Amino acid sequence: MIVIMKPGATDQDVRHVVQLIQDFGLKEHVIVGTDRTVIAAIGDKRAVDKGAIETAPMVDRIMPILAPYKMASREVKQDKTSIEIGPEKFPIGGRRVGVIAGPCAVESRDQFLRTADIVKAAGCIGLRGGAYKPRTSPYSFQGLREEGLHILAEARERTGLAVVTEVMGLDSLPAVVEYADVLQIGARNMQHYPLLEAVGQVQKPILLKRGMMASLEEWLLAAEYIINAGNPNVILCERGIRTFESYVRNTLPLASVPELNERTHLPVLVDPSHGTGHARLVPAMCRAAIAAGADGLIVECHIDPEHALSDGAQSLAPDQLQELVRSLKRIAQAIGRVL
Amino acid sequence: MIVIMKPGATDQDVRHVVQLIQDFGLKEHVIVGTDRTVIAAIGDKRAVDKGAIETAPMVDRIMPILAPYKMASREVKQDKTSIEIGPEKFPIGGRRVGVIAGPCAVESRDQFLRTADIVKAAGCIGLRGGAYKPRTSPYSFQGLREEGLHILAEARERTGLAVVTEVMGLDSLPAVVEYADVLQIGARNMQHYPLLEAVGQVQKPILLKRGMMASLEEWLLAAEYIINAGNPNVILCERGIRTFESYVRNTLPLASVPELNERTHLPVLVDPSHGTGHARLVPAMCRAAIAAGADGLIVECHIDPEHALSDGAQSLAPDQLQELVRSLKRIAQAIGRVL
Amino acid sequence: MIVIMKPGATDQDVRHVVQLIQDFGLKEHVIVGTDRTVIAAIGDKRAVDKGAIETAPMVDRIMPILAPYKMASREVKQDKTSIEIGPEKFPIGGRRVGVIAGPCAVESRDQFLRTADIVKAAGCIGLRGGAYKPRTSPYSFQGLREEGLHILAEARERTGLAVVTEVMGLDSLPAVVEYADVLQIGARNMQHYPLLEAVGQVQKPILLKRGMMASLEEWLLAAEYIINAGNPNVILCERGIRTFESYVRNTLPLASVPELNERTHLPVLVDPSHGTGHARLVPAMCRAAIAAGADGLIVECHIDPEHALSDGAQSLAPDQLQELVRSLKRIAQAIGRVL
Amino acid sequence: MIVIMKPGATDQDVRHVVQLIQDFGLKEHVIVGTDRTVIAAIGDKRAVDKGAIETAPMVDRIMPILAPYKMASREVKQDKTSIEIGPEKFPIGGRRVGVIAGPCAVESRDQFLRTADIVKAAGCIGLRGGAYKPRTSPYSFQGLREEGLHILAEARERTGLAVVTEVMGLDSLPAVVEYADVLQIGARNMQHYPLLEAVGQVQKPILLKRGMMASLEEWLLAAEYIINAGNPNVILCERGIRTFESYVRNTLPLASVPELNERTHLPVLVDPSHGTGHARLVPAMCRAAIAAGADGLIVECHIDPEHALSDGAQSLAPDQLQELVRSLKRIAQAIGRVL
Repeated sequence: MIVIMKPGATDQDVRHVVQLIQDFGLKEHVIVGTDRTVIAAIGDKRAVDKGAIETAPMVDRIMPILAPYKMASREVKQDKTSIEIGPEKFPIGGRRVGVIAGPCAVESRDQFLRTADIVKAAGCIGLRGGAYKPRTSPYSFQGLREEGLHILAEARERTGLAVVTEVMGLDSLPAVVEYADVLQIGARNMQHYPLLEAVGQVQKPILLKRGMMASLEEWLLAAEYIINAGNPNVILCERGIRTFESYVRNTLPLASVPELNERTHLPVLVDPSHGTGHARLVPAMCRAAIAAGADGLIVECHIDPEHALSDGAQSLAPDQLQELVRSLKRIAQAIGRVL
Repeated sequence: MIVIMKPGATDQDVRHVVQLIQDFGLKEHVIVGTDRTVIAAIGDKRAVDKGAIETAPMVDRIMPILAPYKMASREVKQDKTSIEIGPEKFPIGGRRVGVIAGPCAVESRDQFLRTADIVKAAGCIGLRGGAYKPRTSPYSFQGLREEGLHILAEARERTGLAVVTEVMGLDSLPAVVEYADVLQIGARNMQHYPLLEAVGQVQKPILLKRGMMASLEEWLLAAEYIINAGNPNVILCERGIRTFESYVRNTLPLASVPELNERTHLPVLVDPSHGTGHARLVPAMCRAAIAAGADGLIVECHIDPEHALSDGAQSLAPDQLQELVRSLKRIAQAIGRVL
Repeated sequence: MIVIMKPGATDQDVRHVVQLIQDFGLKEHVIVGTDRTVIAAIGDKRAVDKGAIETAPMVDRIMPILAPYKMASREVKQDKTSIEIGPEKFPIGGRRVGVIAGPCAVESRDQFLRTADIVKAAGCIGLRGGAYKPRTSPYSFQGLREEGLHILAEARERTGLAVVTEVMGLDSLPAVVEYADVLQIGARNMQHYPLLEAVGQVQKPILLKRGMMASLEEWLLAAEYIINAGNPNVILCERGIRTFESYVRNTLPLASVPELNERTHLPVLVDPSHGTGHARLVPAMCRAAIAAGADGLIVECHIDPEHALSDGAQSLAPDQLQELVRSLKRIAQAIGRVL
Repeated sequence: MIVIMKPGATDQDVRHVVQLIQDFGLKEHVIVGTDRTVIAAIGDKRAVDKGAIETAPMVDRIMPILAPYKMASREVKQDKTSIEIGPEKFPIGGRRVGVIAGPCAVESRDQFLRTADIVKAAGCIGLRGGAYKPRTSPYSFQGLREEGLHILAEARERTGLAVVTEVMGLDSLPAVVEYADVLQIGARNMQHYPLLEAVGQVQKPILLKRGMMASLEEWLLAAEYIINAGNPNVILCERGIRTFESYVRNTLPLASVPELNERTHLPVLVDPSHGTGHARLVPAMCRAAIAAGADGLIVECHIDPEHALSDGAQSLAPDQLQELVRSLKRIAQAIGRVL
C-alpha cells in the first residue's frame, strides 16, 4: 500500500501515519518527493482495512498495491486450470472450446427434452436450463423447482450432455447438488457470501457469473470465497455489465477475457445471450468471444422463442443454433483451438 | 405494452403479432402511422414475458407501459407510509426526520457501547452496527456474529435507540430477528429473492438498500417481493450507484429521493457514508439529502476512525457527528420538517 | 509516479525501468516489498507520457501521484476565487448564492423579454438563454443566432441581469463575446481545446460545464486550458453525468460540489435542469445543491413550457421559479449563506 | 410518439394533450387501456420538441417511436456503403477487411517513416498518425501540426498507404483537408456541430469516432450532420465507452458492430487501442472485432512504445503488429471475408 500525503504535510503528520502503519503490523518506507511525501507500507496484510489511514490528518489518498485475491491468481498457480464437466468429462479450460445451450427455464418435460435433442445434435457439450429462477418481479414465472431438476436429470441420461443449472439459495442447494453437473451462481448472487461459502463445500464444478456491476477484482474475490472454502473447481462466466447503453440488456465487455487469462488460471466462459439481450446480436458476439480467447460459451435457445416463458427475446431458434455452431468451429480453428 | 414494427412490415407480419398478443390473453389495438405500424396490447398481465414478441418477424422493439410493481406504488396507496422503529417508536416517513448512526461493524462491547452513548447524545434516533458483515474479501473481518447481536441489544437497553443491523442470509435470519429492531438488507442482497421472501414473513421493519446497479424499478420490485410475502414495513435506503466516477466509492444520485416520493408511498432514507466513501464528503451530502426530501439518514461514525476494522475512511468522528446533527436541524426547519 | 512490477520481476527488469525513469529526467527510488518491487519516480514532469513505461517487461501498472492541473488547484491558490458577473457585478464564489434562470433557447423577442421580467422579479441575478444551440439532431431548432444575441442584450439593459449564453465554436465567438456577460462552454465542448484556448484569450467570465463523461480531473484540466491561455475567470458548472439510470436525463452527482471545494479555488454552480431532465425533480435538486455547498444555480424556466422549442420537459413555469427561490433563501440561511 | 397518461387522468387531461399534439401538426390516436390511457401521435415531425408535452398535467412520460436519423439509416438506403480510401482506393465496407495502423502522434520524420514502412510490410492498408493532438492536459505534447502533415504526405508517397489524421477544429481544417486521405473526427469532437457541418462540405472520407458516452442514436445523428451537409462518405469507428471498469481505459462494446450493421449502411471500423488502453489486450480484441463483423481496424503501433510521446501503453511493437495481421487473415477467412 502507498499512502500519498497532501502538499504541506508536516513531519508530525508523516510520523503519525508511520505510527498507524506500524500499528497494522506493516513496515514503512518514506519517500520525500518534490511536491509531496509518499509512504509505502510493506508487508502482506490482506486482512487489514487500510482505508482507515485515509482519515489521518493531511493524508490525500491510499493506493493498494497487492491484488487481494490469492488462490484464484496466476501468481499462485501458473498453469491454466481445466475442469471436467458432465458424464463425458468435457474439459473446460483446455484446447477444446465447448458450447452449453438450452432455454432460460425448464418449462415442461416435452419442451425441455425436445430442446435437449436439438442441443445435442448441434454439437454442444452442455445443457442449460433453470429450475429455480431468480426473477426481477414476484409476479413472473419462478420455475418448476424440484420437478425441473428431475427433467434436467432425464435430459442428461438421454443425451449425455452436462447439465448446468442455477442454485438460488441455501434452501435449494441440497436438491440442486443432487441433480446438476455444474452449479451456476447467478449474477445477482455473485456476492451472496453465505451461498459462495456453501458451494465451496460441494465437490461439483461451480459456474460463477459476473455480477452486472462487479469489477474483475470483486469477481475474483467471489471465486476466492469458493476456493477458500474448499472447492477449486470454479468456472468464470462473463455475462455483461450494466452501462448507459440502452440498445442492449447489458454491455458485453470482451476485453475481460484476455485480461482474466492473464490474472487467473480459472477457465472463462462467455454468455452472449444475457450479454446482449437480443437474439439478433448473439451469433456475432459468440464468434467474437471465441476469437477473444474464451474457453466456451453458454447461450440460450428455445424450440419456440416467441412463446418462451422467460428471456424469449434473447433465445436462438433451433436452426440458428446449428448454424452458429458451424461458424464457431471455423473461428476456433482460426485461433488454433477445436470445437 | 406497445409493439413497434419495422418499416416495411406486411399485413401478415402485423397479423402474426396480433395473434401472439391474443395468445397472451391481451387485446390488440393497431395504429398505422406514416412510417411504421404500432400495436398496443391492452390488459393487465404483469406475469407474461412480453419480450418474447420481440423475436417475431419484422418487430423492431417492445415498450412496456405499466409499472411492474403494484403494492409499492402510489397508484395503489396514495398516502405516505410511516413506519415506527425501536423502543421509542420513532415514525420514519412523517414530518420528522431521523438520523441513524453507528460504526460499520460491532468490533467490541466497549467500542460499541461508547459509540452508542455518543450517537444518543448527538440526538440520533437509531443505532447501526453490523454483526454479520458481507465483505468483498474472504480474508477481511467478518463480524462478531451472535456476540455482536448481544452487544447491539445491550446498547438498545442502555440508550433506547432503535437497533438496525444487516441480515446476510437465511442461516442467520432467526438470530437477527430476535435481537434487531430493523433488519437491513444490504445492497449486494437486494435481489437475493429467497431472503426477500423470508423477511417478508417477519413482522419487523426492513431497511432495503438499493443495489449498486439497480434501477428504481428493480428496487421497487425487490420491495414488492417483501410486501407480497406479507410484510408491508419496508424502508428504502439510497446508498449510491456505481458509475465511472473514481473520486467516490459510489455516486450518490439524490434525484432518486424526489422521484421515489412520486412513485412510492414507502419512506426513503439516504446513506451518504457508502454513497461517497469518504468522511470529508459525508456532512455536505447529509445536508443535501435532507434538502432533497429524504425521511432520514443512516451514517457511519466511529470513536476512532483511524483504527476502525472496516469502513474507516467513511466514518465520522464523534465531534463531527454532533456538529452534523446541529446543521441538519436547520436544514430540516428550512423545508418545514423537524429533526 | 509509482511503477508496480509484477511478482517475479528480475533485477534486470527493475534496472530497465530505472533507466526509463532516468530517460524521462526523473529520479528513481526502488522499494523491495514482500511480494513485489515498487519504483517511485520523483520529480515534477507533468508533460511526460509516463504510460509508456507500462509496456516495459514485467511492469504490472503505473500509478500517478500528482494532480495534473496546477493553476486550478487549491495547492497553488488557497483562497476561493470570486468572479463578478453582469452590470451589477454579482460576486459568484463568495458568501452570497446566486440563481441564473431563463429558457433553453431565445425563441423570440416577446418570449424572452417576458421571461426576463419574471426572472428578475423572482430574485435571480442572471439570465440564461441560448442564441446558438448545439442540438443532437440536425433537424432540430438551432437557435436565432445573432438575432438572439441582440435580444439578450436588450433584456440585460431592461433588467440589469447578467446575461449568460453558450459559445458553440470559433466562428461565433467574436459575436458572443460582444454581447454576453458570461460565455458558457457547453458539456459537449468541454474538451474542444481550440475553443478553450480561444476563450482563454477573452477577458469575460467563462461558465465551464462538466462533460457528461468527464472525470473531475479532466474537467479541471479543461479549466486549466482556459487559465493557462490567460483567463483566470472560470466558473465550473456541474450538470450531471451519464450513467445507467434511465428515469433521469443525467445523474446529478452532488458530491462533486464538496470535492471540488477541496480541490479547486474556482466557484461551482449546479444545473439541476440538465442534471435531471424533468421539471418535477428540479426544485428538490436545487435545494440539495445549495445545501451541498454550491455557489449558485443555473435553471431553465419558460413562460409556457408545454410549447417550448427545446428542453420543455425540464423547464420550470414562472410560478414554480418564484416559489423555488423563496425556499432556496431558507436553505442558504440554514448553512450560513445569503440568497 | 406515444404519450402515456398517469392513472386517474381525466377526459379533460386527455383532451389537453390531444390539443398539444394537434398544435405540433400531428394527428392523435387515443387508446383507453385497463389502467391507463395512451395517446399515439402520428406524423413525421422530427423537428418538434415533443418532450414539452411531458410537462402537461397528468402526463406520465413520452416514448419516441421513430429513429431521429434518416440518411444514415438502412430504412433510406438498404445497400451497405463502400468508401474508397487512399491512393490505392481500398474499399472500406465491402467483403475485404482493412487494417489501418500507426503511432498516436507523428513525433518526427524518422520515427514516422520507419513506422510507415513497418505498417506497409505488415499488410495494412492505411497509416494513422496525429499532427494535431487533442490532449487532456495543456502541458502535454500537442503534435507537430503543419510539419506533421508534411511528414504524413511524404509517408503516403513512399508507401501508397491511405493517410488518416485527426482534424481538431475549424482553424486547422483547410490544412488537414489538403494533406490527409481520411479526416478523423475524434471522440471528444463527436458532437462539435460546427466541425461536423464543416467536414460535411469536404469531399474526402470522414472517420467519425464514437464519443465515449455517446448512444448509438447520438452517434448516428452526428453522422447525419455530416451527410446532411453534403458529404455521404462517413466511416464510423467504435473506440469504446466509459463505464465503471478500471482495468481498461475504455470498455469496448463490440455488440455495437452487429447492431450498427442492422441500423445503418455506413461502414464500421473498431479501434481496440483506445478501446482497451493496454497493448496486451489489443490483439485479442482485434480478432474479436473482425469476428463480430467489423469492416476493419485502426490500431496504434510504435517503433519504440516505451519512449512514445503519447499513448505508449496501448501501442503495439512492430513484431506484434506483423503477428496480429497474420492471425486476422485467418479470422477474416473463417467468416467468409478477406484481409
